[in-house]
Amino acid sequence: MRKPRIVVLGAGYGGLMTVTRLQKEMGTDAAEIILVNKNDYHYETTWLHEASAGTLHHDRVRYSINDVINRSKVNFLQATVEDIKIEEKKVITDQGELEFDYLVIALGAEAETFGIQGLKEYAFMISNVNSARQIREHIEYQFATYKTEDEKNDERLTIIVGGAGFTGIEFLGELGNRIPELCKEYDVDPKKVRIVCVEAAPMILPGFDPELVKYARAKLEKKGVEFSIGTPLKEATENSVLIAKGEDEVEEIKAGTVVWAAGVRGNPLIEKAGIENMRARVKINKDLRAPGHDNIFVIGDCSLMINEEINRPYPPTAQISMQQGEVCARNIASLVKGSEHLEEFTPDIKGTVCSLGEDDAIGVVYGKKLTGTKASFMKKVIDNRALYMVGGPSLVFKKGKFKFF
Amino acid sequence: MRKPRIVVLGAGYGGLMTVTRLQKEMGTDAAEIILVNKNDYHYETTWLHEASAGTLHHDRVRYSINDVINRSKVNFLQATVEDIKIEEKKVITDQGELEFDYLVIALGAEAETFGIQGLKEYAFMISNVNSARQIREHIEYQFATYKTEDEKNDERLTIIVGGAGFTGIEFLGELGNRIPELCKEYDVDPKKVRIVCVEAAPMILPGFDPELVKYARAKLEKKGVEFSIGTPLKEATENSVLIAKGEDEVEEIKAGTVVWAAGVRGNPLIEKAGIENMRARVKINKDLRAPGHDNIFVIGDCSLMINEEINRPYPPTAQISMQQGEVCARNIASLVKGSEHLEEFTPDIKGTVCSLGEDDAIGVVYGKKLTGTKASFMKKVIDNRALYMVGGPSLVFKKGKFKFF
Repeated sequence: MRKPRIVVLGAGYGGLMTVTRLQKEMGTDAAEIILVNKNDYHYETTWLHEASAGTLHHDRVRYSINDVINRSKVNFLQATVEDIKIEEKKVITDQGELEFDYLVIALGAEAETFGIQGLKEYAFMISNVNSARQIREHIEYQFATYKTEDEKNDERLTIIVGGAGFTGIEFLGELGNRIPELCKEYDVDPKKVRIVCVEAAPMILPGFDPELVKYARAKLEKKGVEFSIGTPLKEATENSVLIAKGEDEVEEIKAGTVVWAAGVRGNPLIEKAGIENMRARVKINKDLRAPGHDNIFVIGDCSLMINEEINRPYPPTAQISMQQGEVCARNIASLVKGSEHLEEFTPDIKGTVCSLGEDDAIGVVYGKKLTGTKASFMKKVIDNRALYMVGGPSLVFKKGKFKFF
Repeated sequence: MRKPRIVVLGAGYGGLMTVTRLQKEMGTDAAEIILVNKNDYHYETTWLHEASAGTLHHDRVRYSINDVINRSKVNFLQATVEDIKIEEKKVITDQGELEFDYLVIALGAEAETFGIQGLKEYAFMISNVNSARQIREHIEYQFATYKTEDEKNDERLTIIVGGAGFTGIEFLGELGNRIPELCKEYDVDPKKVRIVCVEAAPMILPGFDPELVKYARAKLEKKGVEFSIGTPLKEATENSVLIAKGEDEVEEIKAGTVVWAAGVRGNPLIEKAGIENMRARVKINKDLRAPGHDNIFVIGDCSLMINEEINRPYPPTAQISMQQGEVCARNIASLVKGSEHLEEFTPDIKGTVCSLGEDDAIGVVYGKKLTGTKASFMKKVIDNRALYMVGGPSLVFKKGKFKFF
């Protein structure tokens, strides 16, 4: 009898958690497990703002997939997924086709540009290790070039961050710490540097506690960040952004660097595969399966779940992705065993901490509001916990965040 | 009675040596000494190829001028020289005018582009700390960007070095060592990277011992450097160079980075000042004065001296500049004392070592040919000696090059 084949697409938080739990739950004979991922490494999406600002080296935000999978139980295929053929039960990759009995789609998110002109061409997105590294290098190159100019173009030193949500704010926090270092490295007068956050919504960090938001804004402003709130970004050009002020007025801000951090959508492969979706995210059943597809699980940023308490979708977070991965692994194990009784997933939100750079943060943890070093400490605990969940103490030791006083 | 005022323009090898020797030779009452320099630091021009490749941090190639001058005897003015009014005995700077009784012009060299189209716009020059830092960052940005491209543009990873003279070869040696590091840092396949040296002359390192040249070429080729010799660079474009092959044929080489390292000329201020010159270099008298100007000394790369043994100019080297600085200081001291008997300068070429990257070099020292680690060691001795001459043992300790086995 042929063993059922489980194919997991993506080695992000959700996919990697699924695989590491499957390899614990299932015997070698029970099923064949194949993990497909574009890179041979996993990266911490929630740390990318640090690599982008240059406050943490990109090698610190990634680790080798082979270090955390049990290769006697899991086959890892480094490949780029090109299509998912639902009816034919197979996945097309740049390394060939792959049939599956059970499929886990955990392909993560992409930046959502909402059709704003010029963003794709001229703005950077904090999407992965490659793009984070490019942002870091782009900013450094702007500083280096500034010093070689006979006619100084001060606007080269302006950085626009589009979006005052979680990623935008965390990135601003890192930038605030990084700019003084950059000024020293490149002999640039700090007064010449501008950091401007442009946000369409009338507030920063929507959904966060107002008192904490106030703290965050004050701290970032103290680091030199200017906020332009309630002013939608209309267009990005090669060296500027146009933002709407009021009804008809448009203001141009010249800038050497534009980073777009204002929202994500699911993976376009979801749309291509013909699975019902909203912005490439699948509104999944409580057992994490795609409606109408008993053998297909969708987790992480490709999935959409409604928080019925507030009738809004849960945000795409690492925390939820990892919890989904655990339930997904147990549900697949049940199916393989022939049981039709699947577990229902309920997010268990332990807390949310938004970093404002090294040593500072805001957050709510187990219902308690935190700011400053306490919140920053909790952020590191959360980051280290994600490592622990996937790779145990040895991974925490290798890649964890510690501060020695 | 007013003290005579000595103004020294430039804190490169020649200018700084003049000032440090003047401050030893002369009492506080004998003369007023003013050193004018654009930056508040001196940089080691002969180490810039390392900072450009990224094998040595740019802070390692510079030191503060205030660390080596005796501020009770020398006034340092951080200013950019804009004009020299010979007849009026004054210097115009962006910080105001400065009268002088004795002037030392030690303003160094600029890159010579020989009118080749596009070089000024599109090629980088290894000229100073700012430009070296920009080259380093430009190359890193090309590597980072390559990894973010959907359609990989391999030519982005091609680096063209124009010129197979001293600077070109030393830069190629550093690049050969740097590329493997860059490939690791940016996850780039080393096979995708090309380094091409384009030289108009029919040989590399003209004037060097042929046996040593052969060694250098073989070593650089082993590091992946391709040589295109006897092929003048005709034009640089935004992303390529055009080189002449034979009579009528022109070959285009696409490249993400073009560095022009094929020769220098003196400072344009020499031409502006109306002093007789050849490519902005003054053919000086044996006492280092400009012909017809008894109170103006020209030393370093702005000066031109003929080596009568071979009837060719001496090359613009740090070694000669520093030796000139010593004689210049003694001659000025004589003039201030009222003596008209000035010393004649004769270069004392102790040796020439051309680095091929960390741990490898070729050279002739006291008439003996050296290669490999021995030559490399001598190169470090020479580099440290330059520091010692200006700033004594403490400067060698701070900025010197040592290798601990």
